[in-house]
Amino acid sequence: MQMMFRYNWMVREEWYRWCEEVSEEDLLLVRTGGVGGILHTLFHIVDVEWSWIRILQGKPDFQESFDDHNTLEKVKELDAKFRFEVEPFVRAWEEQMENRLFHDKTPDGRVVTDTWGEVMRHIIAHEIHHIGQLSVWAREIGKKPISANLIGRGLASK
Amino acid sequence: MQMMFRYNWMVREEWYRWCEEVSEEDLLLVRTGGVGGILHTLFHIVDVEWSWIRILQGKPDFQESFDDHNTLEKVKELDAKFRFEVEPFVRAWEEQMENRLFHDKTPDGRVVTDTWGEVMRHIIAHEIHHIGQLSVWAREIGKKPISANLIGRGLASK
Repeated sequence: MQMMFRYNWMVREEWYRWCEEVSEEDLLLVRTGGVGGILHTLFHIVDVEWSWIRILQGKPDFQESFDDHNTLEKVKELDAKFRFEVEPFVRAWEEQMENRLFHDKTPDGRVVTDTWGEVMRHIIAHEIHHIGQLSVWAREIGKKPISANLIGRGLASK
Repeated sequence: MQMMFRYNWMVREEWYRWCEEVSEEDLLLVRTGGVGGILHTLFHIVDVEWSWIRILQGKPDFQESFDDHNTLEKVKELDAKFRFEVEPFVRAWEEQMENRLFHDKTPDGRVVTDTWGEVMRHIIAHEIHHIGQLSVWAREIGKKPISANLIGRGLASK
């Protein structure tokens, strides 16, 4: 579990460096699928990861707006700020937290129950899924995407 | 770990049903990014998952060709055949297998070492990444993609 968070953080950093060589216009262009753009996707990943970690801890969440973070620098700043809170939670994860229950209310009023273990894996899958979308858009603008390989990153020894 | 394999299998089944309502032309059309098409991606996911599980077990691997599996029915058949071998391996996974070493030779002759735990997570991330690509292509043809949500599927209790 922790390995996959570290994988996501590593891949995300590589995408930030990738973005440095892409025009602001291409980073902001509204595209088909996902949340509709390269930088918006990175913002969304950062926001959602932090929001879930907040929710699990019973802390107030708030919806950041992309309009206030629509530059690479601003997204990276937000990420650094949120990571300060997310990373200690992930590193302090223990087996016994796996089956704690989380009750959520859906927009139509139903109450659904998930375990904390499911929520943590949801966060992981959420990011990888959106990064897959970035890889298509990268090719659309003629650039090689960041490798999604998890092997070969020395993650087991970190 | 096992939960994420079950998530992937569940999502994959939903994509197969999604494909049933898409024309063969759209399933086979060569698209930008990834391995270049919807059905080809599903074939690739199935092939790669099985291949890695074979490699870990020291069994001979062989490269299936998409040309021999270029219909939805054929991909589903291949998946069912491979799942018969993949699923017992995943379900029998034990903590002690996590740090077993896997030595691989790269195309340029270097030997890289990963743990079995890394390889298993690589398989998981590989599929989620490619499914993210499908979600973009789904929107391109005007269809809603399968939800990538991991929560709300009752995965903790299965």
